[in-house]
Amino acid sequence: MSPVSKVRLGIIGGAGRMGRWFKRIFEAEGYEVLVADKGTPLSNQDLAKACDVVFVSVPMSAFEEVVKEIGPLLTEKQGLIDFCSLKKEQNEIMLAHTTCEVVAAHPLFGPGEKDLTNQKVALWPSRGKKWFNWFEEFLKAQKAQTIVVPPDDHDRIMAIVQVINHLMLLALGKLMGSAGLELELIQKLATPSFVRQLDIVARFADQDPYLYGLIQFDNPLGEEMRHKYLDILEELTAIADKKDMENFVKVFKEVQNLSHKLKLH
Amino acid sequence: MSPVSKVRLGIIGGAGRMGRWFKRIFEAEGYEVLVADKGTPLSNQDLAKACDVVFVSVPMSAFEEVVKEIGPLLTEKQGLIDFCSLKKEQNEIMLAHTTCEVVAAHPLFGPGEKDLTNQKVALWPSRGKKWFNWFEEFLKAQKAQTIVVPPDDHDRIMAIVQVINHLMLLALGKLMGSAGLELELIQKLATPSFVRQLDIVARFADQDPYLYGLIQFDNPLGEEMRHKYLDILEELTAIADKKDMENFVKVFKEVQNLSHKLKLH
Repeated sequence: MSPVSKVRLGIIGGAGRMGRWFKRIFEAEGYEVLVADKGTPLSNQDLAKACDVVFVSVPMSAFEEVVKEIGPLLTEKQGLIDFCSLKKEQNEIMLAHTTCEVVAAHPLFGPGEKDLTNQKVALWPSRGKKWFNWFEEFLKAQKAQTIVVPPDDHDRIMAIVQVINHLMLLALGKLMGSAGLELELIQKLATPSFVRQLDIVARFADQDPYLYGLIQFDNPLGEEMRHKYLDILEELTAIADKKDMENFVKVFKEVQNLSHKLKLH
Repeated sequence: MSPVSKVRLGIIGGAGRMGRWFKRIFEAEGYEVLVADKGTPLSNQDLAKACDVVFVSVPMSAFEEVVKEIGPLLTEKQGLIDFCSLKKEQNEIMLAHTTCEVVAAHPLFGPGEKDLTNQKVALWPSRGKKWFNWFEEFLKAQKAQTIVVPPDDHDRIMAIVQVINHLMLLALGKLMGSAGLELELIQKLATPSFVRQLDIVARFADQDPYLYGLIQFDNPLGEEMRHKYLDILEELTAIADKKDMENFVKVFKEVQNLSHKLKLH
């Protein structure tokens, strides 16, 4: 099979930032890409009938409605691939509303990246192998890293990688905006560590607040992780307020130990 | 004045990581560098009498004792320069115990860096100009960035740059070590943002726990900033638990606004 000449791709939500990003990447490889979105001449249903693979790249709040609309129209020869930032519930929605092949995918990067080189995509062959294999090979040919991971494992890990990371960045940003310290002097005096932290804040701030809200709200482990992080921060604050060097060093050494384990992987 | 041929430098605490680091840098430029530390043949007092400039690079817990010991031995022609991570109280200690020239310095980096290129050093000409000018010129010739900042401004800014940055990294590390999630999978699924965050954690973990304890405990604004950060984190956790999109987006946009200001500087 020569994929480029025979496979027609469709992106529902193709006018959004991630939708446009993948359209550009697919087209650069010679694929025909149809797009449906609010205001496009093509409807979601027409796109679903016309394409071999249908990507759904819509806000998670609209996802179920879109899958219910187009899922029943897709045949077993077609593939349905989603780009949701959470995977367990979204994967179940897809399986419930279609009999076609299903791939659960999460591009682990935002539309600010140049191309797929060294970018990660989490994947799960939820139903069928043909379109999973096609997509995984496409990604690998573009030098992306694919990580095959069950949807519930994915969501658990994202409770740290996204929920807690975003929470601590948001809190830092809000503190910097409200602490009454001169931003210019903060930047001038930033250590190498804090220069990097400010860079992460800037990248974070460039993202979509509504998407990041749902990532924060809908992760099944999110609430638990947030409260664990809060408890740890309260404990550390109490240690620091008391100038309790013994316990401070104990926690620090736990983190040194963790850091060594991270380097082993 | 040809500084290299005539100026003799001394480092008290010269066997510690930062002391050795600066000894290497000075010697590479041809300076004679004497070192005193626990177990060296040379005593602090002998070093103080023999050198044109005395650097004090000891743990902050030992700083006052060292300055009291050597300060009275130094004459007005000599210079005293400290490397403490906090500056206000430490500067006052130096001024109180010597009549020599005094420079308050804080190298804003750790001994893991290769050389001074692009590294920042906060400086304040606390008493006299001659040794301040000499040190600033040395640093600039080494391509370091010098930031002249009053000691109390320095300490206020470090309440975010170091106290809060370290606190949030420590909490993240402790959470990762205790959340029951597979570290290897966290790394595999790390987004570009979280890859950077893990890199910061690894750099952080490489530092001296006791130094970082004092940075946390002794900053005059530290307690206030820690509690502000904790309050913000509690507020954000409540917003996320309630899935309160309106207020989540409001805070997110505040951080976007802050990020734009950061880019202007």
